[in-house]
Amino acid sequence: MHKIPVGVLGASGYAGRELCALVQRHPRFELAFATANGRRGETAELPGGGSVTFVAPDDVPLSSAALVFSALPHGTSAEWVQRARDAGARAVDLSADLRIGNTEADVVYGLTEARRDEVRGAELVANPGCYPTSILMGLLPLLEEGHIAHGATISVSAASGVTGAGMSARLDLLFGEVTENFRAYGTGNTHRHLNEMRAFVAEEGVDADLIFTPHLLPTARGILATMTVPLTTPMDDPLALWQRRFHNERFIEIVKTPPETRHVAHRNVVRITVQPLAHLRQPTLLVLSAIDNLMKGAAGQAMQNANLMLGLDEAMGLPA
Amino acid sequence: MHKIPVGVLGASGYAGRELCALVQRHPRFELAFATANGRRGETAELPGGGSVTFVAPDDVPLSSAALVFSALPHGTSAEWVQRARDAGARAVDLSADLRIGNTEADVVYGLTEARRDEVRGAELVANPGCYPTSILMGLLPLLEEGHIAHGATISVSAASGVTGAGMSARLDLLFGEVTENFRAYGTGNTHRHLNEMRAFVAEEGVDADLIFTPHLLPTARGILATMTVPLTTPMDDPLALWQRRFHNERFIEIVKTPPETRHVAHRNVVRITVQPLAHLRQPTLLVLSAIDNLMKGAAGQAMQNANLMLGLDEAMGLPA
Amino acid sequence: MHKIPVGVLGASGYAGRELCALVQRHPRFELAFATANGRRGETAELPGGGSVTFVAPDDVPLSSAALVFSALPHGTSAEWVQRARDAGARAVDLSADLRIGNTEADVVYGLTEARRDEVRGAELVANPGCYPTSILMGLLPLLEEGHIAHGATISVSAASGVTGAGMSARLDLLFGEVTENFRAYGTGNTHRHLNEMRAFVAEEGVDADLIFTPHLLPTARGILATMTVPLTTPMDDPLALWQRRFHNERFIEIVKTPPETRHVAHRNVVRITVQPLAHLRQPTLLVLSAIDNLMKGAAGQAMQNANLMLGLDEAMGLPA
Amino acid sequence: MHKIPVGVLGASGYAGRELCALVQRHPRFELAFATANGRRGETAELPGGGSVTFVAPDDVPLSSAALVFSALPHGTSAEWVQRARDAGARAVDLSADLRIGNTEADVVYGLTEARRDEVRGAELVANPGCYPTSILMGLLPLLEEGHIAHGATISVSAASGVTGAGMSARLDLLFGEVTENFRAYGTGNTHRHLNEMRAFVAEEGVDADLIFTPHLLPTARGILATMTVPLTTPMDDPLALWQRRFHNERFIEIVKTPPETRHVAHRNVVRITVQPLAHLRQPTLLVLSAIDNLMKGAAGQAMQNANLMLGLDEAMGLPA
Repeated sequence: MHKIPVGVLGASGYAGRELCALVQRHPRFELAFATANGRRGETAELPGGGSVTFVAPDDVPLSSAALVFSALPHGTSAEWVQRARDAGARAVDLSADLRIGNTEADVVYGLTEARRDEVRGAELVANPGCYPTSILMGLLPLLEEGHIAHGATISVSAASGVTGAGMSARLDLLFGEVTENFRAYGTGNTHRHLNEMRAFVAEEGVDADLIFTPHLLPTARGILATMTVPLTTPMDDPLALWQRRFHNERFIEIVKTPPETRHVAHRNVVRITVQPLAHLRQPTLLVLSAIDNLMKGAAGQAMQNANLMLGLDEAMGLPA
Repeated sequence: MHKIPVGVLGASGYAGRELCALVQRHPRFELAFATANGRRGETAELPGGGSVTFVAPDDVPLSSAALVFSALPHGTSAEWVQRARDAGARAVDLSADLRIGNTEADVVYGLTEARRDEVRGAELVANPGCYPTSILMGLLPLLEEGHIAHGATISVSAASGVTGAGMSARLDLLFGEVTENFRAYGTGNTHRHLNEMRAFVAEEGVDADLIFTPHLLPTARGILATMTVPLTTPMDDPLALWQRRFHNERFIEIVKTPPETRHVAHRNVVRITVQPLAHLRQPTLLVLSAIDNLMKGAAGQAMQNANLMLGLDEAMGLPA
Repeated sequence: MHKIPVGVLGASGYAGRELCALVQRHPRFELAFATANGRRGETAELPGGGSVTFVAPDDVPLSSAALVFSALPHGTSAEWVQRARDAGARAVDLSADLRIGNTEADVVYGLTEARRDEVRGAELVANPGCYPTSILMGLLPLLEEGHIAHGATISVSAASGVTGAGMSARLDLLFGEVTENFRAYGTGNTHRHLNEMRAFVAEEGVDADLIFTPHLLPTARGILATMTVPLTTPMDDPLALWQRRFHNERFIEIVKTPPETRHVAHRNVVRITVQPLAHLRQPTLLVLSAIDNLMKGAAGQAMQNANLMLGLDEAMGLPA
Repeated sequence: MHKIPVGVLGASGYAGRELCALVQRHPRFELAFATANGRRGETAELPGGGSVTFVAPDDVPLSSAALVFSALPHGTSAEWVQRARDAGARAVDLSADLRIGNTEADVVYGLTEARRDEVRGAELVANPGCYPTSILMGLLPLLEEGHIAHGATISVSAASGVTGAGMSARLDLLFGEVTENFRAYGTGNTHRHLNEMRAFVAEEGVDADLIFTPHLLPTARGILATMTVPLTTPMDDPLALWQRRFHNERFIEIVKTPPETRHVAHRNVVRITVQPLAHLRQPTLLVLSAIDNLMKGAAGQAMQNANLMLGLDEAMGLPA
């Protein structure tokens, strides 16, 4: 069977390389091009083996790809996605440019398990941020079924491995600065991902405020979101709600003990547990949600969306 | 000037060794004994250089020490502290046995900056837990001045390095299980330290609930507590409150950016920042508080308390 | 096509779980049983997803497996391997018990690329140690072609991640003891793997001495062996020798820059480079060889051997 | 007693900050200035607490310091050291510019325990490299007493934490590239430090070749050098030679088991053990030597030298 040509823009970063690796292992895709501005001709190792040689973006005939993934930086990506669309390619934008809460445009938001019907056959999908993927997927059953106390504040403390910050030569991301360290950043409810999450919560028709405090972990990969959610009424068996909602989902794992980031590393899954919180007057639920920020939080979910956009099995080419 | 003999019970663990190291460098203390059940005669390296040779607890004349630190396990410690007291020694108990919320007995709670007058000259002090030290010290100005919304829920997400779990040969603490991993534990508001914190909040006359979710960091040392606190009214310049309250404190650092655990490593300090949270209807403050769990969270604060109990300068023998 | 039942003895350790994961993903194998003494009934996560439930070894009908992998401890394994053989199963022993240099018995030594013809169709194979795999595979072309100076001393300094020590609850393997640390162990040419390597060198007809100094890395996985080899005569293009020898090998990667352990993680490969050493009177080669100690150094090579023993494609079920 | 003004050039890097911290804690020194080109006015945290505000080098009256430490990059440092000398200040150059093997100039080489008499009262000292400090100090008794086989090859495999590479925004030093990784670099006997070591060996009158292969550790600090040294004749009790040579040295620790990098972290010491190697025809010694690359390998030794240059107690202001 002939292969479908797929391109990757911004391929030299962490998400870009992960995309290249997934494309190379995908049974129906072949890598048409992988661009990296200023690194033309360089060859880089890919996670899990294999390698890729970068081309300059201006050397690429975008029309040679049936679908283009853009892992370009925020602010730059939207323009290139438009060029790819103009050239006739479908596109998955991994940047924040086209996500809900960040644009007026009406672009499908690719939180797959929540928006599958819209993603299927779509020509353009905005891939969710890594934090929003872990957080919104953890909250989804509560958002959809109206269990969250009206006007309440959902408090989210989340921690991410350093690849979430991209592969940029910043002093604060040096090994010597990150090892044996832990710190919050983007504090005061100011993080870029907050808009995206508030917009999604509103789209679901829920009236709740969000507190979001991200932290930098001394790990390469992984996000864990720790959330406390005030409820309208106590829930007897909260886990059952998640089990029911995600019953048929291949990439959502509902577990009985706190999820660990290592158990989702290199896998395109969200692993979630929920527990009632004791000693409180206000009925409140603890929701813990873990993902690999580069897989379900970026390249993996992008591939899942690409499969749906092209009418393929959603799980094709994705490590379980 | 003659030196004051000081003993350490349970000296082979992380807190115990840190205590031995502090005693050896203290200008007025000398190490009378360091016990470790079953490791009699073994010599161990101490942090920062030097070494200690353990004796069996039954071989020790407790009366040879003017003051005894107990770093024995919870459940075992109280009995040995009583023996030390019976032998005429003052005692600082680092276990949970005698802390508020854990015992009916009326023992001075050694959260130094909050209870200094009671600690000064005391014969017995219960040293606070590592998590409570970071959390309660961060909240102290709010607790003391009545800014917390009545009946509100304070949400605390905290993360600790592995030495907080003690030096025990547990599979889940192996390097291979902890590296590149992050997970919550003691979830559902069930952690042992919760009672201690709830009792302290009540002692301060504050009516608020607490949510406490601890996490295990892939670091040796360090605790960061991330807290969101609903306020009665918005605060214009919250940092000023902390600066005022801790104005003369040598071991409290109020900073303007999020504290990092590496900046408190090997130091007997609490480093705190506070920020108002945007986009919320309920006025809420973010409080971030970092300590070294083995120093201000254990051995350092114990030494600070011992200095006060014996009428010495509180900072004697402590790294700034 | 029917699946071949395969059993794993000693499945709860790091190598054992890796074996279970490989068996579960193997297109032709199914897991007949996974034993773990004293953990009967426990379920454990496997690397890469999935899980396994352990049975007690005495509950297992060994004859239910066509092939048995033993990841039991040294000293215990040989007996169980014999029982499996008596029950009619083929066996791959991952312990040191039956390796050359450790036993008088004549057992096929499963350094696959060096002994493929003997492994093919064999009923019993002793799987090489992790250090010997990286070291001997790196040296193989020199050993086979007689380039090593007669009577010379090959100096090997090697470093391994902690999973090489197995999953045992040892204080010296705790995260707090390994992070931010590096140390040699088994020094003075006393490590158990030395006999195995000396026996192999002798089998190849080479008269050379070996110095072997292993070190413990603060990583979970990976071995890097750094070797200096005195040559009979200088070699103009040493890399060509390795490229020629391993030309058709799918699991050997000859590279031009120093191999990194992360590039072989979770992969069944040996990655090797060689370089002449400047400023020396004695012509000497630097050989650098990296493997994942749990894959090519244990479970992966065991699976490669099992495939050959059963007449399957050597690469079946193995991540490239 | 009045304090001696001391300046630090190139203060924003790892060694520079360590120097500032040591100067601030030194009982007889005060920090006259700390320069960092392009970071004028910025304030940085120092290891162990405290902070420093940088000035531009051109704003500094070099004559305001009695002694200047230069932690400027290789190639830049020598010129600034000359300016400091011209302004009347003594100088310790931490760069490679003025070290033996790197310059024709006759500058005192500050490997303190080997060249103490020359350092005492000197006006200019070239501080040794971090690798040479660990390696040459480990070899010193053998070099001085003529035990090394004539014309032999000493093989050194050494590993360093990332701060040895300085605080530069390089992609290969990012946390995501270093964690869970280990690799050699500067291979083929090409590392800059080799000249320095060969020159020192020659200065000691020893005819031997050196192989030096450095590696990058996933740690912030620490160097371990693993050396094999061919001897003229077997030594019965090799440790005694080191114990005798370093008998009165406060910063050299001779130990009986392999030294660990964590045991020298934040300390100005070299920790050494030696062992005979079994199973060899050529009598050979294993020498293991560990330092903190930023302390005894840089700032600590520089301070030790500065003390001697100014007639102070060598250990003043240095953590044991």
